[in-house]
Amino acid sequence: MTTTRTIHNFSPGPAALPAPVLAQAQAELTDWQGRGYSVIEVSHRSPQFVQLVQDTSARLRRLLDIPDDYQLLYLTLAATAHFSIAPLNLSVASDRALYLNTGHWSRKAAEHAAKQVRVTSVDIVPGKAEEAEKDIDPADYAYAHFCPNETIEGLAWPARPTLPPELSSSLPPNLPLIGDFSSCLLSSRLRIADYALIYAGAQKNIGPAGISLVIVRKDLLGKARATCPPACNYALQAEQDSLLHTPNTFGIYVINLVCKWLEEQGGLAAMERINQAKAGLLYQAIDTLPLYRNGVPNAWRSRMNIPFQLANPELDQSFLQQAEEAGLLFLKGHRAVGGMRANLYNAVPMASVEALVEFMRQFAQRHG
Amino acid sequence: MTTTRTIHNFSPGPAALPAPVLAQAQAELTDWQGRGYSVIEVSHRSPQFVQLVQDTSARLRRLLDIPDDYQLLYLTLAATAHFSIAPLNLSVASDRALYLNTGHWSRKAAEHAAKQVRVTSVDIVPGKAEEAEKDIDPADYAYAHFCPNETIEGLAWPARPTLPPELSSSLPPNLPLIGDFSSCLLSSRLRIADYALIYAGAQKNIGPAGISLVIVRKDLLGKARATCPPACNYALQAEQDSLLHTPNTFGIYVINLVCKWLEEQGGLAAMERINQAKAGLLYQAIDTLPLYRNGVPNAWRSRMNIPFQLANPELDQSFLQQAEEAGLLFLKGHRAVGGMRANLYNAVPMASVEALVEFMRQFAQRHG
Repeated sequence: MTTTRTIHNFSPGPAALPAPVLAQAQAELTDWQGRGYSVIEVSHRSPQFVQLVQDTSARLRRLLDIPDDYQLLYLTLAATAHFSIAPLNLSVASDRALYLNTGHWSRKAAEHAAKQVRVTSVDIVPGKAEEAEKDIDPADYAYAHFCPNETIEGLAWPARPTLPPELSSSLPPNLPLIGDFSSCLLSSRLRIADYALIYAGAQKNIGPAGISLVIVRKDLLGKARATCPPACNYALQAEQDSLLHTPNTFGIYVINLVCKWLEEQGGLAAMERINQAKAGLLYQAIDTLPLYRNGVPNAWRSRMNIPFQLANPELDQSFLQQAEEAGLLFLKGHRAVGGMRANLYNAVPMASVEALVEFMRQFAQRHG
Repeated sequence: MTTTRTIHNFSPGPAALPAPVLAQAQAELTDWQGRGYSVIEVSHRSPQFVQLVQDTSARLRRLLDIPDDYQLLYLTLAATAHFSIAPLNLSVASDRALYLNTGHWSRKAAEHAAKQVRVTSVDIVPGKAEEAEKDIDPADYAYAHFCPNETIEGLAWPARPTLPPELSSSLPPNLPLIGDFSSCLLSSRLRIADYALIYAGAQKNIGPAGISLVIVRKDLLGKARATCPPACNYALQAEQDSLLHTPNTFGIYVINLVCKWLEEQGGLAAMERINQAKAGLLYQAIDTLPLYRNGVPNAWRSRMNIPFQLANPELDQSFLQQAEEAGLLFLKGHRAVGGMRANLYNAVPMASVEALVEFMRQFAQRHG
């Protein structure tokens, strides 16, 4: 049980979990709170597990300040499964949907949705807004879909998106807005009421893979298409408090521990400050050391996912190899863009960012 | 990390896991094989995790002797989600499907399927076969659906079902047969080739909740309806080796450990003998001690789920309470049938069955 080496985990996801969370999960994996059995060996309908679900929901509701007219669901589905499933649940009012294109994942969401609804894409990537169509009336659409943090490009948007100026200054408030918060939920404060529906895979900031959270305004439930499988029907899941089928019980358990850890850190306002400081330190190194660059304009830089390139890409392999030898793991950029990427999710401590920055400084000296 | 008391876990599911599996998962939860990070903190596309998936598949294929023309999938879905999803994948040839009714779960499967296909139910429960319709030609159907082990009633069928004699002596071999093996996969030998499709939730004999296995004949892939969400589309999942979305990585990891444990026990032939011996011991106690009864005819008795009633149901509460005090947990029968139920999945050792039988003997003496 001793760690053979100290590592710094910059994985894009499934990502690092807080060390105290893993330590507690480990300590009680064979004996959940002195009961003599594991949390993964008990019925999801047992009083002790139902109590865990209720406690987890109460903590998530407090952390995110979820209004009472929103339902919280734990679904045994990956985040990207909602690319197809959200349209099946929300497209009854109209079969047209507006997709705000911010990068790789929002494009994927639009592609998957196009099998279920008629999709109009609006490009709101910095420097590309001129490509947007000009004659869109958002009132024609069942909903708009938005991804506020794009992990591959390292782009981030304000939580309530603005449309290109030639189109409209903002989305009409009555147009239901779907948010794919897979890579940023719980990393900073958020006004839930800006959204009709939020979905997020757990494996970045929330818990392990194999479970996703859905936060949906209750008046939007019950409008799924008849062919939508019950496992993917938010209303049927809501009726059964996410226990329509056996849920990912280990996932809910770890989410509970993560919530407690977030509360100990001071909640989402504190996490926002910490994440700002972590990202600030790394961007400063990238911007001041001539070997490194990040091409994203300041206003759009993600705090979660920070891609960077070397001035001399022939050094990429050496950088990655020496980083790994120094215990700085999983820094390779996504295959779609190459270069490096440091993913600074909640559980990555400031000490890991400091170790990375120090390594980058030394590597730049050796190869400057 | 010390267990505060010795318990015997008869949970209906999520059920007990083998003690050595939990011990290893615990030992390396913070440090996976000396790498310095947890198995749940690493990308599902990393070489080390892809290798784990391949190793798990190889072990499952050996244990179950899965023919090469069958695809094995790990899906982030509960077993009962397949009640709706299997029809979406297999009902292209015809919109009619034959459901063999064996009990609670097969009825549920038929109810869910009826939203997707035209369902004909045939009752093959012992003593009820006379209720079956007589003019069914199985050739009219896209598939037949069968659940060989009903957990609530404690009923089990031979792996290749027979239809009531007035209907046909057996299913035509060319009719694709879907098997819901959630409560018995890996508990005994099985001829995969008898089935077109097998699905099973992990949380009985295979691993933790939040993941299901699908074993499907490859020629049946690619026939899903257009509206089927990709997460639920077996063919799209097969194309990506179950990595279409981020999978339940912890689930796959524990399944890997369970496979190794099964191999150490001697594989499925050995498990079949052990499970037969465990069930035999408990049925013997039920049949010989006058306080207890199980109404299922011998030929249909489940080895996995053994319901029993007390001659005097007013003692139910005392039995359950004293059992729990003795560390014999989760023996309450399903709310649909009442009484008691002992679930003897793979991970429940003979010692637990012996402890239960000894308790039953003593309880009978006190209350005989």
